[in-house]
Amino acid sequence: MPLRKSWVESANSPETEFPLNNLPYGVFSAGQRNHHCGVAIGDSILDVTALEDAHMLRPSGDAKVFDSGNWNAFMELGPEVWGRFRNQLVGLLGESADSFIRDGCRVALVAMTDATMHMPFKVAEFTDFYAGRHHATNVGTMFRGAENALPPNWLHIPIGYNGRASSVVVSGTDIRRPWGQLKSPDHAAPAFLPCRRFDIELEIGAIVGKRSDGPVSVASADEMIFGYVLLNDWSARDIQAWEYQPLGPFQSKATATSISPWIVTRAALDPFRTSTPPREVPLLPHLHEPGPMLYDIPLEVSLQPRGAAKASVIAKTNYAEMYYSAAQQLAHHTTAGSPMNVGDLLGSGTISGAGRHERGSLLELSWGGKEPFTLDTGETRSFVEDGDTLTLRGAAQGDGYRVGFGECSGTVIAALDASDLPYPTMKDA
Amino acid sequence: MPLRKSWVESANSPETEFPLNNLPYGVFSAGQRNHHCGVAIGDSILDVTALEDAHMLRPSGDAKVFDSGNWNAFMELGPEVWGRFRNQLVGLLGESADSFIRDGCRVALVAMTDATMHMPFKVAEFTDFYAGRHHATNVGTMFRGAENALPPNWLHIPIGYNGRASSVVVSGTDIRRPWGQLKSPDHAAPAFLPCRRFDIELEIGAIVGKRSDGPVSVASADEMIFGYVLLNDWSARDIQAWEYQPLGPFQSKATATSISPWIVTRAALDPFRTSTPPREVPLLPHLHEPGPMLYDIPLEVSLQPRGAAKASVIAKTNYAEMYYSAAQQLAHHTTAGSPMNVGDLLGSGTISGAGRHERGSLLELSWGGKEPFTLDTGETRSFVEDGDTLTLRGAAQGDGYRVGFGECSGTVIAALDASDLPYPTMKDA
Repeated sequence: MPLRKSWVESANSPETEFPLNNLPYGVFSAGQRNHHCGVAIGDSILDVTALEDAHMLRPSGDAKVFDSGNWNAFMELGPEVWGRFRNQLVGLLGESADSFIRDGCRVALVAMTDATMHMPFKVAEFTDFYAGRHHATNVGTMFRGAENALPPNWLHIPIGYNGRASSVVVSGTDIRRPWGQLKSPDHAAPAFLPCRRFDIELEIGAIVGKRSDGPVSVASADEMIFGYVLLNDWSARDIQAWEYQPLGPFQSKATATSISPWIVTRAALDPFRTSTPPREVPLLPHLHEPGPMLYDIPLEVSLQPRGAAKASVIAKTNYAEMYYSAAQQLAHHTTAGSPMNVGDLLGSGTISGAGRHERGSLLELSWGGKEPFTLDTGETRSFVEDGDTLTLRGAAQGDGYRVGFGECSGTVIAALDASDLPYPTMKDA
Repeated sequence: MPLRKSWVESANSPETEFPLNNLPYGVFSAGQRNHHCGVAIGDSILDVTALEDAHMLRPSGDAKVFDSGNWNAFMELGPEVWGRFRNQLVGLLGESADSFIRDGCRVALVAMTDATMHMPFKVAEFTDFYAGRHHATNVGTMFRGAENALPPNWLHIPIGYNGRASSVVVSGTDIRRPWGQLKSPDHAAPAFLPCRRFDIELEIGAIVGKRSDGPVSVASADEMIFGYVLLNDWSARDIQAWEYQPLGPFQSKATATSISPWIVTRAALDPFRTSTPPREVPLLPHLHEPGPMLYDIPLEVSLQPRGAAKASVIAKTNYAEMYYSAAQQLAHHTTAGSPMNVGDLLGSGTISGAGRHERGSLLELSWGGKEPFTLDTGETRSFVEDGDTLTLRGAAQGDGYRVGFGECSGTVIAALDASDLPYPTMKDA
């Protein structure tokens, strides 16, 4: 599919992440517009809350869906309405729109540079997976040796755990380094200290847009997915090492998970569908993928120390590296009968490629801190330092156009001072 | 504290779980009353939604809080209002109420036997802990041997994992045996089968009634707790055994978690406060308990096979067996900065005593299925069978009165037929 042209000129640039082919959904404030729903088009945002007020858009027929400051009510309307609405947007913003339509839209166009972005949807529950083959192999090799790198179940089920929905934040939110209980190998007892091995995880999040109440097939699961976001699952590796046996990560993953401000819809990504890699062992039927359900989306991670003139790209990989698709993960999520709800968010798991510079976490890039890597500034890093801004980017490359998410960024700020904690702390135990 | 007398006669029986000293909160339907908020008193329910409509109760001053079918809006009003409201209820239902008040209340009294109970609150997020010393020791001994029974972190932090809020159901809801991926030791590959080792976990759930946004102390955590429920965390042991490494339980805990229909408030339980058991190793300061924050609540589990004339009590224990209180768990939950929200539910972890008949799961009662136990009917059990009704009960014993939760019950029904699944299955792989 080639570029679809818009009368919004900036949307026709081969460089923009937001051509008419994309039309991702976000929530913004700008001037009098307070938590309005918007659609990115070129360097602007189309204010659909305003268009709904003006009766130019009414996806639900009569009741308003864009007045609640998130896209959940719209998601509730279901896939048929999602498709019709997308067609309406193309009618409004495509180059065949007449001058009456263009004039109506122009008053609802806001420059992105004037907007503050908010969470695009209310997260119902958050699940994070561990479904990248290279990531699992790297981490497993570090912790258990190369022979036992992959747990025995890994090639049979997408391993996942429930995360904390309340800690999901939008790109641009500062991330405060957490305190936590950790135990260094050279101490007999644990101590309560600021995290020393703070990390990122490069992921793609899938958003459930349709309820289910029982087991669903992979094909149905794919249709339940409303769209995708970039997702950074901030991770406290030292807290994790101490706490994770036997019930998995808990406080190590509770500080924050950042997502991109734009939800890229399944429809926009459709031209970029690709199959999961060949199976190393056959999957049981409930996980069979009836068609290509992964996406070819080049991804990169950059790190910019405080005061540095520019960011260093520290990793490049592709969403297509995942061993399991979001549809497979969602199908697995329903096997035991748990209802899934509109707004559930599923993190893909860390996305790493085979190469040394294709790793989606600092844990892997610095090989557990043993091999610090060098930034363009000459500084080195093993884990994230205070003042570092970590940014994820991702855009699928079409024929003369790109479909992107906007950046998913967060700056790490210093842990709370001990005197600001509601309890005494002890120095290194 | 002795029994506080009510003009509702049934509330003065030493047998009732719902004297004036209790006043627990639930949601019920009966006739025209559809999802009304109610307070248990003796054998009746006081319809506070009706009293709010009649302006006899207005905890928030003007806006209604009891018209949304759950207690979340009331919880949002905060601890001061919770206390004032409880005093108002005592004024309405205590024996000193005048005839005008009694007449006003009588039209809002519904016989419990006429009511259907619903979820008393909307669960925001669900966390489950593993904080019972005997349970952790039993399970650890079975899986890792007596020397390595407790993981090294266990005596230092309340180990917990995030569960699935969407699968929490009220007592009386049938529980469908799940399908799942499992691998028996005598097969090379996993299979997709109905769970064969379906189990219960006897727990108490604590409900967060007050938001937090950063680390909180144990003392503050205690004040954030609105009340407690009985909680049964249904568990598929065979699914768990295969999936839980390295990220913890996922689908094994996703089928359902049952809770009692009544939330017993912190105020009602206050006379039964008791300290956690002596520490075996000192806790770090952020987990220090400034006072008694556990409760002396005798608990029991019964099992009634389909068609059996009566249920067999299979376990008796006490909430006071927990090594960590809910306040300690909640404080730990906030260490890394995760916001806690009104409606968050924290399961205590399985409550087991030291004795053989004090174990809060069938896994422990049958020692991993190796030592089936016998019911009063003569039948034996290793795990839950289809048609079994499992019931948790709990009531603190005061001076001539009891403070209870009502029962937390669920009947296990057969797994979906293979032909009703949305995908083919294979027989034993």
